[in-house]
Amino acid sequence: MAKVSPRTLSGFMELLPRQQMKMERMMEVLRRSYSVYGFTPLDTPVIESAEVLLAKGGGETEKQIYRFTKGDSDLALRFDLTVPLAKYVAAHYSELSFPFRRYQIGKVYRGERAQRGRFREFYQADIDIIGDGKLDIINEAEIPAVIYNTFTKLGITKFKIRVNNRKILNGFYAMNGMSEKAGEIMRTVDKLDKIGAEKVRQLLIDEVKMLPCKAENVLDFMAICGSNAEVIARLEYYRGMDETFDQGLDELIAVTRYLGEFGVPEENFAIDLTIARGLDYYTGTVYETIMTEHPEIGSVCSGGRYDNLAEYYTDKQLPGVGISIGLTRLFYVLSEQDLLSDDFVSAPCDALVIPMTEDLGFAVSAATALRAGGIRTQLYGEKKKFKAKMSYADKLGVPFVALVGEDEISEGVLSVKDMHSGEQIKLSPAQAAEFIREAVEKRNESAVIKE
Amino acid sequence: MAKVSPRTLSGFMELLPRQQMKMERMMEVLRRSYSVYGFTPLDTPVIESAEVLLAKGGGETEKQIYRFTKGDSDLALRFDLTVPLAKYVAAHYSELSFPFRRYQIGKVYRGERAQRGRFREFYQADIDIIGDGKLDIINEAEIPAVIYNTFTKLGITKFKIRVNNRKILNGFYAMNGMSEKAGEIMRTVDKLDKIGAEKVRQLLIDEVKMLPCKAENVLDFMAICGSNAEVIARLEYYRGMDETFDQGLDELIAVTRYLGEFGVPEENFAIDLTIARGLDYYTGTVYETIMTEHPEIGSVCSGGRYDNLAEYYTDKQLPGVGISIGLTRLFYVLSEQDLLSDDFVSAPCDALVIPMTEDLGFAVSAATALRAGGIRTQLYGEKKKFKAKMSYADKLGVPFVALVGEDEISEGVLSVKDMHSGEQIKLSPAQAAEFIREAVEKRNESAVIKE
Repeated sequence: MAKVSPRTLSGFMELLPRQQMKMERMMEVLRRSYSVYGFTPLDTPVIESAEVLLAKGGGETEKQIYRFTKGDSDLALRFDLTVPLAKYVAAHYSELSFPFRRYQIGKVYRGERAQRGRFREFYQADIDIIGDGKLDIINEAEIPAVIYNTFTKLGITKFKIRVNNRKILNGFYAMNGMSEKAGEIMRTVDKLDKIGAEKVRQLLIDEVKMLPCKAENVLDFMAICGSNAEVIARLEYYRGMDETFDQGLDELIAVTRYLGEFGVPEENFAIDLTIARGLDYYTGTVYETIMTEHPEIGSVCSGGRYDNLAEYYTDKQLPGVGISIGLTRLFYVLSEQDLLSDDFVSAPCDALVIPMTEDLGFAVSAATALRAGGIRTQLYGEKKKFKAKMSYADKLGVPFVALVGEDEISEGVLSVKDMHSGEQIKLSPAQAAEFIREAVEKRNESAVIKE
Repeated sequence: MAKVSPRTLSGFMELLPRQQMKMERMMEVLRRSYSVYGFTPLDTPVIESAEVLLAKGGGETEKQIYRFTKGDSDLALRFDLTVPLAKYVAAHYSELSFPFRRYQIGKVYRGERAQRGRFREFYQADIDIIGDGKLDIINEAEIPAVIYNTFTKLGITKFKIRVNNRKILNGFYAMNGMSEKAGEIMRTVDKLDKIGAEKVRQLLIDEVKMLPCKAENVLDFMAICGSNAEVIARLEYYRGMDETFDQGLDELIAVTRYLGEFGVPEENFAIDLTIARGLDYYTGTVYETIMTEHPEIGSVCSGGRYDNLAEYYTDKQLPGVGISIGLTRLFYVLSEQDLLSDDFVSAPCDALVIPMTEDLGFAVSAATALRAGGIRTQLYGEKKKFKAKMSYADKLGVPFVALVGEDEISEGVLSVKDMHSGEQIKLSPAQAAEFIREAVEKRNESAVIKE
């Protein structure tokens, strides 16, 4: 028979088992961390009506969208989790309680040009808090705590949450008569990290056509740094010149005020006036998260405050704040840079029961006892030589094998072999469950990301 | 601005938060149960090349497939998890160790005619064990244990795993000279549950054109029942007449032999000779699972043994055994029949911290302490009247609120109110975490399905 080549499409991540276990662990950490902050899980269809998904219309993403017809229906695959959330909240408005806090970890689709590290199908892991009419600033103050907790639990300690407020930027440009050029200026300032202050100054003068003194003003403002208290003290000099600026400054002060009580250490947090995050959507606090020893990865968790989640679907004013982790891309770069830990158990099972007799009765009972004790257990039932069985255990990276021969059966025990140390010990199935559980729990304390 | 109606496509399940929590819990039980049996999680793309996905070609499903082009690519959405598994194993053959045991819980797509309870996007939750060249019968014997453990953990006790062997059926038809009509006979016998023996007999005579005595033979055979030992004893009468039959009987004996050691009670297991499961794919043991008090739901977990997983992609002989749960449909019928429990916590959080003062410092610290103690905690930060805050807690179904007023702040405590009993108690944040954890853990012992 002619065979079809079993290929996977380019731009679609498909992992081998041990890598997949690491991805699952990352997802589990995210689910757990988001839940601890009172976000409820949500699941929405991958396919939506194209009319609904593209209600906002136009834009850079539209070309990338997977859109097709089925029967009479014009359909599209979701390209983010925000539009489906807007639809969900508008559709179920009367059945929800506000503030509505949801998390969603799901696949989204963008038919980007295929290139290394770019994915057409990728997981996003989002949280959002949606208010009905209004939403208190305390919600914006809480977001850095969620980011801090999530990344710490993933195993990263060297990261910085950079925070800014769009009202401060807009107010600053207004007070300097630069509002019309604000978009262009922000796009140029965004290059500071990459090309440095001098080149940005030149671009502001040559391309944005600013007067040198105005360009200097912008650069001076963007260069404000120091502790939160120092930055805020510097920003206070600008107070009273623009209402939007003052409001933004008040919000920034509120966001930083409870950082300590929220458990976010100052070294993981920085006000950074260069952060802007897109141009039309965000209206208040904006966030980026940088792994400080791997700045080349870029922001691994971003988001901000917006005023109107679902304006294309409803007249209700639904302000919100949210952040998103591009999980597939994050996993990819961590893996490429060898930052994923091998210390926890990524084998399919914690114990492989290897029978060495014809009758499997005791081996089966023992496997059942281990499972009842919570041990992920595989019974190796193939009729192979002992060496082949042990080689299988080795290849899977199983931490323990439990050997069952004539002696073990007559004594009612398992010979439990630690595949790492090579040590072997005879234990009853119940003792073995206890022994293996302790050892595996200890190994699994290791975080998924190493630094 | 003209609004787009925020509708969700028909045939696509989209749940409200509390329902979604129940679904998440079911998925968590499945993940845990599958893992305990040594199955490793797998994730494959939703989109595949149409050529790959339709390698088998033709068939009833092809019309239902979501197929479309993007650029030059002819693409399709997966319609089950078996074809992607076949592709995966063929593509990664040299990187996998066999037997390869994987589970996958994922969405699949079928553009069926829309009707109540039929879904176009639905979750399947599959496990499969794939051998390289051969696969021992003990794997087929283990499957009922996985089913038993999974359904018990979901909260169902009144269910029966019905097991048969295709070789027994094929052998029986061969020894009676009915091989040519075997397909037609099996399709007719499949109606036994619905229309009864008398009507099946009539159909076998009138439509399948069997002699009355032969039809009687078939019905007599299908009527064999009793304990496993009794059924096997009856089947032994047929031994020696057909090689395939004898092989099937040996396999059935092997599958039932270790049931006790695998922890499957006899009352949850029955040999049922009427089970056939599809016509071309399965070649050995086949499984169905019925909720005994809700037979109208049909089989909630089915599968079987097959000889050649990936013949369209590779010359390698890859026999396997697998089962599948149609999770979305199962969830839907359980929900319709009010069989989903409300006893465990399905609110977004276990504790809602309600501040009653202007300064939120202590409330934020307390929320942080509860979260550090593992309590899913929401801080209610909106400036509303006390009554509105309590009403929000009520609507969410939050089990505990933690009130923070002037008194609590000066005493360094929380007033923890049990929303169920109405009892209120002052506790330090650390004590509160302990208190709430214990109560919530107790409530969460409740299984997701009630009977």
